Amino acid sequence: MFLGRVIGSVWATQKESGMENLKLLLVQPIHADGTDAGAQVICADRIGAGQGETVIVSRGSSARVLINKDSPVDAVIVGIVDSFEYRH
Amino acid sequence: MFLGRVIGSVWATQKESGMENLKLLLVQPIHADGTDAGAQVICADRIGAGQGETVIVSRGSSARVLINKDSPVDAVIVGIVDSFEYRH
Amino acid sequence: MFLGRVIGSVWATQKESGMENLKLLLVQPIHADGTDAGAQVICADRIGAGQGETVIVSRGSSARVLINKDSPVDAVIVGIVDSFEYRH
Amino acid sequence: MFLGRVIGSVWATQKESGMENLKLLLVQPIHADGTDAGAQVICADRIGAGQGETVIVSRGSSARVLINKDSPVDAVIVGIVDSFEYRH
Amino acid sequence: MFLGRVIGSVWATQKESGMENLKLLLVQPIHADGTDAGAQVICADRIGAGQGETVIVSRGSSARVLINKDSPVDAVIVGIVDSFEYRH
Repeated sequence: MFLGRVIGSVWATQKESGMENLKLLLVQPIHADGTDAGAQVICADRIGAGQGETVIVSRGSSARVLINKDSPVDAVIVGIVDSFEYRH
Repeated sequence: MFLGRVIGSVWATQKESGMENLKLLLVQPIHADGTDAGAQVICADRIGAGQGETVIVSRGSSARVLINKDSPVDAVIVGIVDSFEYRH
Repeated sequence: MFLGRVIGSVWATQKESGMENLKLLLVQPIHADGTDAGAQVICADRIGAGQGETVIVSRGSSARVLINKDSPVDAVIVGIVDSFEYRH
Repeated sequence: MFLGRVIGSVWATQKESGMENLKLLLVQPIHADGTDAGAQVICADRIGAGQGETVIVSRGSSARVLINKDSPVDAVIVGIVDSFEYRH
Repeated sequence: MFLGRVIGSVWATQKESGMENLKLLLVQPIHADGTDAGAQVICADRIGAGQGETVIVSRGSSARVLINKDSPVDAVIVGIVDSFEYRH
């Protein structure tokens, strides 16, 4: 999993089966100090994350099975961060 | 999943089982501002994406199970983007 | 798997099912010489790793099935390093 | 999947179960314009790709299940490219 | 899979279930010309690879199922390279 910041939303009408009724957010992976940490990811969100919030993202089969075993989703927001502390 | 732009097509006659009858598109991952975001990906497309369109790509086992459980495909276009908004 | 250094902790109240009661640590991947090796990872920890410790992290489906087959977790601390030796 | 160019061959006598009788090729991932696109990959090849040819590579569980469900292989050449067109 | 050079060993007493009795080697991914190719990986080794040897590494679920279906291992040495040839 990684830390990310919600930076936007994506809409698609024409899509594959299993993509219906999913809220898709654009997430920028970040380091703990708030700087960008690589390429943006489109995540399914079922827990109500909002623009600018810091979130935890899970990827791959871990994201897939959360939605359901046959889902085409490979990235999901799994937590909205209340706080974190770090000392690099 | 990630944002990408369809930049081309790929054809192969000699291929592995499970690769028959698949339309293969070359996709350039992009950031929300339209700049390139890493190495190009060859994606299966079943929803009719066209040259220059912005798409959503899913990878790994999430792409595989969408085609079928035993598919060798590891990247699929899962949505054609109507619009997106972002504030980085 | 890769070497990492525990640099912090992350807390989230609002989270997906399967994320309850997990201790989440922020881990900086490192090279054997102690320098940073890429983007930070949020890992589930069940073996009691502490701030500043050097750990072994496993990712993907290997991390998922360790917690349980349907877990949304994609990164777990699987060992606390006693020692290592290397000659690059 | 990604575009690659076959740049060599690898031989190993001492190997894990499931690696027997596999032809292993060294593949350089490339962009559509022929420039290198990241680290080289060792791929199983069952369709007769040759030195210098442009191929399609699949990775991860999609490569594994193509060989068989319990294969240790994580990269396979799934197509030999006849032609491709792109406009970046 | 990728080419790597064994550069060291890692020991951990406190570890997750499924990590017992595994020899863990530190591997530096390399290009065919011997230069480094990205971040170091900790690999399980069951075929007797030694310091300085060139090896083939498999990752992800392909590494996991080789050990066993529920293993937390995500990287395994699957071959010790006898020779390779390449022309980039």
